[in-house]
Amino acid sequence: MDQIVSNIIKMTKPLDQNADKSTNIDSAITQLQELVAKDMLVVNQTILDRMKSPVVLIPELAGHLIASGGKRLRPMLTLACAKLVGYEGQRHTKLATCVEFIHTATLLHDDVVDESNLRRGKETANVVWGNKPSVLVGDFLFSRSFELMVEDGSLKVLKILSNASSVIAEGEVLQLTTTSNMSTTEDAYLEVIKAKTAALFAAACQISAVVGERSEKEEEALKSYGMNLGIAFQLIDDALDYSAKQATLGKSVGDDFREGKITLPLILASRRGDKEETEFWKRTVVKLKQDDGDLEHAISLMQKHDSINATVERARYYGTKAKDDLAIFSNGKHRDVLENIVDFCINRAY
Amino acid sequence: MDQIVSNIIKMTKPLDQNADKSTNIDSAITQLQELVAKDMLVVNQTILDRMKSPVVLIPELAGHLIASGGKRLRPMLTLACAKLVGYEGQRHTKLATCVEFIHTATLLHDDVVDESNLRRGKETANVVWGNKPSVLVGDFLFSRSFELMVEDGSLKVLKILSNASSVIAEGEVLQLTTTSNMSTTEDAYLEVIKAKTAALFAAACQISAVVGERSEKEEEALKSYGMNLGIAFQLIDDALDYSAKQATLGKSVGDDFREGKITLPLILASRRGDKEETEFWKRTVVKLKQDDGDLEHAISLMQKHDSINATVERARYYGTKAKDDLAIFSNGKHRDVLENIVDFCINRAY
Repeated sequence: MDQIVSNIIKMTKPLDQNADKSTNIDSAITQLQELVAKDMLVVNQTILDRMKSPVVLIPELAGHLIASGGKRLRPMLTLACAKLVGYEGQRHTKLATCVEFIHTATLLHDDVVDESNLRRGKETANVVWGNKPSVLVGDFLFSRSFELMVEDGSLKVLKILSNASSVIAEGEVLQLTTTSNMSTTEDAYLEVIKAKTAALFAAACQISAVVGERSEKEEEALKSYGMNLGIAFQLIDDALDYSAKQATLGKSVGDDFREGKITLPLILASRRGDKEETEFWKRTVVKLKQDDGDLEHAISLMQKHDSINATVERARYYGTKAKDDLAIFSNGKHRDVLENIVDFCINRAY
Repeated sequence: MDQIVSNIIKMTKPLDQNADKSTNIDSAITQLQELVAKDMLVVNQTILDRMKSPVVLIPELAGHLIASGGKRLRPMLTLACAKLVGYEGQRHTKLATCVEFIHTATLLHDDVVDESNLRRGKETANVVWGNKPSVLVGDFLFSRSFELMVEDGSLKVLKILSNASSVIAEGEVLQLTTTSNMSTTEDAYLEVIKAKTAALFAAACQISAVVGERSEKEEEALKSYGMNLGIAFQLIDDALDYSAKQATLGKSVGDDFREGKITLPLILASRRGDKEETEFWKRTVVKLKQDDGDLEHAISLMQKHDSINATVERARYYGTKAKDDLAIFSNGKHRDVLENIVDFCINRAY
């Protein structure tokens, strides 16, 4: 495995025309963290409090995932959007916790599903504890999330988040039906990532407008911002799965390839390929007959057809739309942070 | 496998002192079905409508389980309790659907977990479709259930059902931690079945008092009725797992034994056993080293120590408590049906 990673690092240089972005990226996430630091203390404490259970395996397993260094981007979005709309109450921290619990439950179930071995550079919960506890602790966090929403008491928030949960599950099932299916179109792929990823980003942002009691126009704007940001985020995630940057971050590269997951870098490369290349994709992705060197060859085909860059370009398009969604809010620090976080999500590809 | 079943049938005769109960059992479930027949038509249609999705695998997989002949006892309890409290609106059918969706989601996740091969005499969804879709379609039904509750709009109902869902997940995880653990006490076992099974029975009954806008006393009475009935139901389920009756119904016998699941028939038999028997349980249930004939030997030990009958006796105790819970409601057809269903749940062991 180390040899593969080192090969990939040699093969795929970071796209250096954007290398100067790295400072901005770091400062964008730092700005966001600073903006919501006080609220995140409350969120982190609420997470710990609400994953408690007399059944010790639950906090043990949930804590493994929750402590494993995720950026908590989704709850931070809820908190930052609440600031953008001038909300000054306390409900947003509880709802940000709900968002993180739904996300964590999805990860736990997704890991069972994908049999992936590495997330955030650590062993996944299902590798450590097995599939059984991962499914059930996911169910617990999901239920706990709804209990928290009920405590908050807004039927509108409940509607937004229960709908997002349905859509996420639909998206995950849809993704299964596209697996190893080379006729998956770019549109079908977009449907999957909108549902499985962007819907929760959208809900995370929208609920802030609800607790802030803002106009439907502002609510829709934040929902759209989250949706576009979420699409860009997932496009970059899928590009990173074939990139040297991912390898240097200690995450596994090529998970999607090994599982026959049809993502945009693969769709674009195979669409642009000749007959011989089509046979290669059929063998490796449809039949999942993969040998040493196949991942490297897949990446070289993506580079030949520039499909990873093309994926990043799509992400830029959605990133621009996300920024445009913020236009109705007044200029200032809060809007700047939310605009910069779009660049952060895109430029982490480098 | 057929040979095992036939051996078990020879070994374990139905407890014939109660054989005359069979007519009453059939009539009890028929009475309940007749009482709620009209409402169940609505529930069945709502189930079909709400499991629809453009992702065809979802209705396909969910339909497999939902069409596979379960009695829909839980939603029938919601409907019958609504009649008991004189509710004449339409909300109860939607909420009965929520209850069935939560139950179905739990089954889907439980099948993944237990790798059991037979439920209701058919192949489980995860055997047919694999674990991945089962987890995700379970998530979909669970989310859909919350969407339905939100449509109903009662925060009190949402609180009861989201709490029940958390408790169920906790119970399932707790059950994992007792697996292959011979020091599991009867009390610990009771905690598991209260959480994983009885909590949903309790919620299914309690919400009827809520929609009927009845006193807290009646609400608590129905909750307690459901809880006691649910405990009795699971005790009998666990007895059936070692019984000839189960074998004749085309369900697998000995699933719990094979998985090292610690249920009351096993707890009582091992507690009453000698040193040699303790070694047998250690090998088969703790180390899960099982040979041909071990299941039959386990059953013979349970018969020797009368632990299956003792389990049924415990169920009777909870059944009596369930009937007592109904005492505050006026006598009549509705109360009779709910009392008789207690006997149905217990006497299906014969």
